[in-house]
Amino acid sequence: MNKSVFYKLSYGLYVITSGKEGKFNGQIANTVFQVTSEPPTLAVSINKLNFTHEHIRESRKFAVSILSEATPMTMIGQFGFKCGRDIKKFEGISVRTGKTGLPIVADHAVAFIEAEVVGDMDCGTHTIFLGQVVECDILDAAAEPMTYAYYHKVKGGKAPKTAPTYQKEEPPQPAAPAVKAARYTCSICGYIYDPEKGDPEGNIKPGIRFEDLPADWVCPVCGAEKDMFEQEA
Amino acid sequence: MNKSVFYKLSYGLYVITSGKEGKFNGQIANTVFQVTSEPPTLAVSINKLNFTHEHIRESRKFAVSILSEATPMTMIGQFGFKCGRDIKKFEGISVRTGKTGLPIVADHAVAFIEAEVVGDMDCGTHTIFLGQVVECDILDAAAEPMTYAYYHKVKGGKAPKTAPTYQKEEPPQPAAPAVKAARYTCSICGYIYDPEKGDPEGNIKPGIRFEDLPADWVCPVCGAEKDMFEQEA
Repeated sequence: MNKSVFYKLSYGLYVITSGKEGKFNGQIANTVFQVTSEPPTLAVSINKLNFTHEHIRESRKFAVSILSEATPMTMIGQFGFKCGRDIKKFEGISVRTGKTGLPIVADHAVAFIEAEVVGDMDCGTHTIFLGQVVECDILDAAAEPMTYAYYHKVKGGKAPKTAPTYQKEEPPQPAAPAVKAARYTCSICGYIYDPEKGDPEGNIKPGIRFEDLPADWVCPVCGAEKDMFEQEA
Repeated sequence: MNKSVFYKLSYGLYVITSGKEGKFNGQIANTVFQVTSEPPTLAVSINKLNFTHEHIRESRKFAVSILSEATPMTMIGQFGFKCGRDIKKFEGISVRTGKTGLPIVADHAVAFIEAEVVGDMDCGTHTIFLGQVVECDILDAAAEPMTYAYYHKVKGGKAPKTAPTYQKEEPPQPAAPAVKAARYTCSICGYIYDPEKGDPEGNIKPGIRFEDLPADWVCPVCGAEKDMFEQEA
């Protein structure tokens, strides 16, 4: 069984929000898809360990923001690699309240969908929730939805350990250029600092070696400090 | 509710095969996604009207071929718009027999996955089948998986009426160039003949008006004849 096959499946990238009575949470997911068109229903797969799972199970509703290609890694890190039990997920993020009362993430969102849970399936570590769509609209018609492939290839993103698509070993990068300076991996979130790319969002130009990054530089995804990075084998 | 939102969700494009005892069928699907990694499981959403649905329900197994960007529209038409009850789905297609005994479509496939059904969820018009992966491998490491967006934008493809993502009205084409000659829509499968694009697979160059197409020209997707086309409103 060659598990690198799973990287050939195509997905988008989404923020899923849920909760009730003023207590809300949000997380990143890539497994969102339409199931039926009459009535319109949507399935989402959520890890049971995620705080959002509790929220969906209890409130029986969720909202999906479809992220655009322009979404900064810091925002994906805030929702994807940090737990809502520990930090305020919505700090510094534009949010609008939807028909369901849920907070809908509006920053870098191409569109949103709100759904009420009408079914669920226990899948071991994850649950697939089936939601009937109660509202949806375009937020930025000109923006391109981010695909999971774009997130990996262009943004250098990784899957957190609770993602359906998480794997211990990343597949070899196809057609990778010959790299001279070493790449470093964040031991917290798996982000790879590649000297050939630099860190555009942190104003680090391509060509800067990891060793030469400022001492106060942090992981653009999860905020980990430099000493949490390990040189790539 | 603005249903054009559903077009912003990202998918790949897959052939799903199933069956038993020498009776097999295959169909196109876009809703395939990984659910868990330990053990690896895969979900697929199938319309109850589709012949493949019967096959999966009875044999409790299915195989997925991940189609590449190079997949010709004729092959997608053969699996996507024609019913296995009426035609031989595998005619002219390279197939290999997998560990499960299922036929795996190898033509234009980036990779394949075989799974045994371990759960299912009734979703009205569709069923989500959950399959535990029993085998998977890469078939063409250099090929790019086709995304649903690529299929729509570059290949001019449409959703059949039994797809989860089928909608009666297609959304307006973003940034469409000013079209002089009329476009014609296939009343069988929804394929649009666009004179600005021609039909590269049928050796029709861009710039040829629909009216000037040869009398024996047929729809590249479903094989319908010219008189089944209607001028776009």
